[in-house]
Formats: sequence, C-alpha cells, structure tokens
Amino acid sequence: MNRKPLEHIKVLDFTRVLAGPYCTMMLANMGAEIIKVERPDTGDDSRDFGPFMNGQSAYFISINRGKKSIAVDLKSPKGIEIIKELVKKVDVVAENFRPGTMEKLGLGYDVLNSINPGIIYATMSGFGQSGPYSKRPAYDMIVQGMSGIMSITGNPDGEPVRVGTSIGDITAGMFGAYGIATALVDRAITGKGRMVDVAMLDGQVAILENAIARYTALGEVPKPLGARHPSIAPFGAFKTADGYLIMACGNDSLWETFCKAVDRIDLLELPEYKTNALRTTNADKLKTHIDEILSAKTTAEWDEYLNKKGVPSSPINTVDKLFTDPQIEARKMLVEVEQPGAGKLRVAGNPVKMSGLTQEIPTDPAPAIGEHTADILADFLGMDAAEIEELIKNNIIK
Amino acid sequence: MNRKPLEHIKVLDFTRVLAGPYCTMMLANMGAEIIKVERPDTGDDSRDFGPFMNGQSAYFISINRGKKSIAVDLKSPKGIEIIKELVKKVDVVAENFRPGTMEKLGLGYDVLNSINPGIIYATMSGFGQSGPYSKRPAYDMIVQGMSGIMSITGNPDGEPVRVGTSIGDITAGMFGAYGIATALVDRAITGKGRMVDVAMLDGQVAILENAIARYTALGEVPKPLGARHPSIAPFGAFKTADGYLIMACGNDSLWETFCKAVDRIDLLELPEYKTNALRTTNADKLKTHIDEILSAKTTAEWDEYLNKKGVPSSPINTVDKLFTDPQIEARKMLVEVEQPGAGKLRVAGNPVKMSGLTQEIPTDPAPAIGEHTADILADFLGMDAAEIEELIKNNIIK
Repeated sequence: MNRKPLEHIKVLDFTRVLAGPYCTMMLANMGAEIIKVERPDTGDDSRDFGPFMNGQSAYFISINRGKKSIAVDLKSPKGIEIIKELVKKVDVVAENFRPGTMEKLGLGYDVLNSINPGIIYATMSGFGQSGPYSKRPAYDMIVQGMSGIMSITGNPDGEPVRVGTSIGDITAGMFGAYGIATALVDRAITGKGRMVDVAMLDGQVAILENAIARYTALGEVPKPLGARHPSIAPFGAFKTADGYLIMACGNDSLWETFCKAVDRIDLLELPEYKTNALRTTNADKLKTHIDEILSAKTTAEWDEYLNKKGVPSSPINTVDKLFTDPQIEARKMLVEVEQPGAGKLRVAGNPVKMSGLTQEIPTDPAPAIGEHTADILADFLGMDAAEIEELIKNNIIK
Repeated sequence: MNRKPLEHIKVLDFTRVLAGPYCTMMLANMGAEIIKVERPDTGDDSRDFGPFMNGQSAYFISINRGKKSIAVDLKSPKGIEIIKELVKKVDVVAENFRPGTMEKLGLGYDVLNSINPGIIYATMSGFGQSGPYSKRPAYDMIVQGMSGIMSITGNPDGEPVRVGTSIGDITAGMFGAYGIATALVDRAITGKGRMVDVAMLDGQVAILENAIARYTALGEVPKPLGARHPSIAPFGAFKTADGYLIMACGNDSLWETFCKAVDRIDLLELPEYKTNALRTTNADKLKTHIDEILSAKTTAEWDEYLNKKGVPSSPINTVDKLFTDPQIEARKMLVEVEQPGAGKLRVAGNPVKMSGLTQEIPTDPAPAIGEHTADILADFLGMDAAEIEELIKNNIIK
C-alpha cells in the first residue's frame, strides 16, 4: 500500500499567514491537493515576512511547500463566479479571515453549502464565529495574553514571556485540520459536509492542562514556575559546570536511580524528599542540592552519564543543534527542499508518521502567485486557452 | 443533523497520563466510544496526580471525562486473549507505552493487524518507534529541552523557562488524533487500517515555525526574546501604570492607528520606525517609547480604549479570569461537569466547533477503574454473568 490517506481530497484554500496555512499544510502532508487562492497583486501576506532567500520568504516557503496557487480577484463578480464553480469540484474550503469576510464576498458557508452540500467548510479565527469578541482583530500575541498561557510561562516575578513559537496560531491550525479530518470521516457515512469553526483563543484554553484543574479544584491561581513542573520534582532545568541540564525524575524510582547515580543516597533518607509531593513542596531547596551536585561536570558529561544510568535528561538545545541530531535525522524531521530561485532550505517534516506513507512531505516547491491558475481552470472547469487569456486580460485572474 | 462525526468509532485505549489520553479525549469530543484499558490494581498513573477533590484527581477527571474503563490484567494469557477478542470489535487501538511494550505483551501492530486488518493502531511516544533514541524514556520536560522550544522561550540572558503547559505531550496527542482521523478517512476507501507513529520530539520540531526558517535561511541561531515577536514590532508586552498590556500592531496601518490613538503622530515621522522591519530592528528603543506612553493609564483602561480604537490589545490574564470571561462563556470553553464523589468542576471544552455537533463534550463523568468491564465484555463479546464472575474471581479482570 502506497496510498496517501487524503490523496483523494481537494481543498480550496483561502488561508493566509499562519493558522490557516498550517492547517492546510497538515492536509498536504497527508496527500490532499491544496489549491491556494491568492490576491493577484500581492498574494499571501506572509510572502513578505522574513527571513528571505534571494528575495523569497523562507517563512512562506516552509508552510506552503507542495501547494498550488491560483490568483483570482475576489472583488470582481466574475472572480466570485469562478470560485463558486470550483467549490462544486472540491471537498474542503478553508479560510482564516476575520469573521464576516467570506459572507461579504458572497462566499459564506450557507451559500457554499447550497452549491455543494458535501462541502466541508473550515474557518479559523482569533475568537471564532460567535461570542462578543468574534469580530475583534486577533493575533497570536493577543490570544497568548488573553488565554492565560503567558501567566503560567516565565520566571516567578520575572518579566512577561511569550511561548517562543506562535502557539496560538499553530494549535488553531492543528485543531482545524483535525476538525476537517473528522468531518471527512463523517461525510463518508452521511454524504453531507459540515462547518468547522475553530478559534485561536479556544485552542489555547484547550491546552492549558493542569492549570485549569488546579484552579477549579483548589481555587489556586497558577503562576509561572520558570523551568520546573508544578507537581513533579525534581523535574526541570538545573545548573551544571557550563550551563543547564534538563532532568526529569517522573517518579520515586527515578529519583532513587538519580541519587544512586550521583552517589548521594543520603538524599533518599531526608524526610523532606521522601515522596514526590514532599519534593514538590520543597522544590526550591531540592534545586539548590541538585544544582550543587551537577555543578561538578558539564552538561554534555551529565547528559551522557545520566542517560546511561537510566535517568531521563537532556541539554537545552538551541535550534542549530537539531540540524545534526541523529534522532531528528532518523525521523526525517528536517527535510531538504529546493525552491526555484531561492535555493535549498530545510523545513519541518511531517510529525504524523504512518504505515504506507513513504513520502514524508510533498516535494513540490511553494508556488509563485497564480502559478497554477491556468492549469486548475482548465482541469477543474474545462476552460480553454482563449477563455483563460480573456480573464487574464480583464485582470480577473493572474 | 445531530450526529457526532465519530459516533460510529470504537477505540480500545491503552493510554496513560497525558499525551495518549489527550488524543483519545479529542476522539471522545467527536463522539467516539473510548474503552480505556486499565491495570486492575492502580489504573492510569494520573489517578494519583493532584490536584484532588475528595480524593479524586481533578487532573485525571479533566482528561478522561466521558470515557469507559475496563480493568484487565495484561500479564495473564487470558487477559491478552480478551484484549485480542476486543480488537476484532473496535476500529482504533491507541497506546503511549515506551516502544516495544506492546510487542512484549503480544499486542504489537503486526499481531493486531492480522487479527483485524481494518484496525488503526496509533502509538505516541517520546521519540517514536524508530531512530537511536527510540527506547529512551521521555517526559515532556525532556523534549521541551531537546527540541529547541525552550531555547526560544524566556527572557534574553534570563534563567531557562519551560512552556507553562505540557506542550510536548499535548501536541503529540493532537497529532495522534489527526493521524487517526486521516487513517479513518483512508479506511473508508481502502478498508485497510494503518499504523500511526507519533513522537513528542517530532511534534515539537513541527511547531518551531520561524525558528527553523531563520536558521536554515540565515544561519542565525534564534534566541529567547521575552514577550516580543522576532519579526513584528510593536508586538508584545508593554508596561502600564499597574502591570502589562499586550499590544499587537501586526502591520503599518495598525502602527499608525496606535500612534494616532495615543496622540503621538510624531512617532510616525521618526525614520527608525518607518517600516515594520525598522521597528523590529529598533524594538528595544521602541519599547522604551511605548512603555512610557502606556505608563499613563492602567492596563484595563488601555485595553478598553485601544480595542475601541481598533488596536489589538489584551491584558495578560491569569487563569481565574477565564472563568468569568464572556467570550469563553459564549464559546462554552469551560464546561461544568459533575464527578460522582468528587463534586462539580469545570474542564476545558471542545475547541473544534462543528455544525450539527450540539453536545460540546461528553457529559458522562470519568470512570472508576473497571467501572464498565462487565458491560463491555457482555456487549462486545457476549459473555454471560457466570463467565464474567469467574474472570473476576481469578483476578483476570476487575
């Protein structure tokens, strides 16, 4: 079997920047054909986001490799007519405009559903299609602040800290892709499409984990704890001779293994460290002990030694280290792609490995604006060259 | 239409703690029937994780509400036989043991696939089923350190900081759920199952976003930047009279809107702030200006004022604030559930809203260990009461 699981799925993709394109990238990784609808003039905004390679955005390339692009003027009635014809031929429509935009274009879910009752329509937005904040503009940074995730990230009493990646956008894209996939499972039975409505803010609440449990059960407002875990110890970053080591003693048995490995069985006898609950309560004092022990050797030395002894540990890798890591290599998680005009670069691989899915990510480059307009209109709508030429001349497509 | 999209799907769920249970919770949210297989003695480890409500783990409840539990001794041949019979009756098997564990139990993918060729087998682990680190123990903290995400989170030159939620576990669960859903889409066409292999480390690499683009395009090792964005400015946390405000001027037009709103059009004239690229280069100086401007009023005053003016802003909410937020309320993102013996608590809602999906999350409580053993064995395998009684007496099930 060498079928990609979504290779029969076609997606008309109005998304821009990050949340939406991340969603359709996940669909592309599983074999779906992604037809990116772009503005004829400037295309996806993220084409202008650095870093650049010979004038092309490495950022754009990394999220849009393997997609096709058609450039259609959505302000012209003829452009909208073309889109509606395409909607009849695809399985999924995805967009991440501010709520109301697709309706204004005459492309709201009700319209598209009446054209193609099997259509799955996925929308990703800051706050979702409902609720008092629905129409507010949102960025990743806003939902990171609003959702509480920043309030539990960072050092106690330190300056505020964002999660270093755009987690608000990315989780919205992930939940969007999951919603689309489950709606496709459903459609195989009912023949009917669904509207999927994902909000960045909702997604952040959904990943808050024990912070919600703590507040609801204890009324305790969770605070940032630096690099340590709220309810496991020792479990965090500790000082070594030349930097830091992550060490994670997830249970009593690993704590014992650690104490033996560093020849400090005396710590096992201390009443304040007898149980995980006690170690967590006394985490600051415990950290002082462990920092002292680990200061005797370098991070690399401890990492090798402790892993050999069965204590889970890791350095705090900078991003360059990933490019030579044997595990990342073995899992093909940084894949080289070649972008015409820009050159070779490496992009994140597909984290969803699957039997029979031998090609990890699409090898086609990211598209130029409108690179596939003529092909798609010919293939999907049977337009001939003269008709396409006329549309180009009238600035409806590019 | 009031069908849940996965309501025809049955999942035999061997997962414990977080990554796997998060995955099957996402399937449960979409209507799948989750049969959690637990150790008869202690069950899922996370039953012992705080915080507790009348002795029950709020942590466990929040991730396992709506699932069923069967308790089966996997060390007994009869227990394994029962599992194999159940595998014939379900669609999905999910597990997050260390690689090799299911094989040792005689329940590896090859075996289960030969019993039921339609089975979708999803495994979530620290490093995946292949590669040199595959058998290493992993915790969220380890992959946060190893993947590079900690190297871009935190304040410059500050102490190391973890992402405040267990993002390594949770994204693995999310990618796992997506993999299962796409394999189900595929199975509707081919009739065949797939093995889905998700690694926490792979998942973290997949969400690194522009950090990878920057290193591959420029050879620049990304560093932590506190609360500011690496390539957009002003876009981060700024000081107010009583705390901080998140403000996100995602483009030139919003920057202009901001300057006008705070009556500082002089800033628009400064050459060092003319473009987003220049503002990013001069982000530290820009922050000084903005901190000074915002110090005149409180966070709440600025938030109200700036949002009215169309400038995206937010306070840095603590988790308690979510419980009274009208948007979270409107989106049903904190749902009250009642757990017998523990009382009422609120858990995260379903972030994947969908037409026809009227019941947001399963209303059934989290199960007691083995609460549904007898029912499931009777319903799925046609066992009679005497047979079940006998298995209980022999400590095979509970």
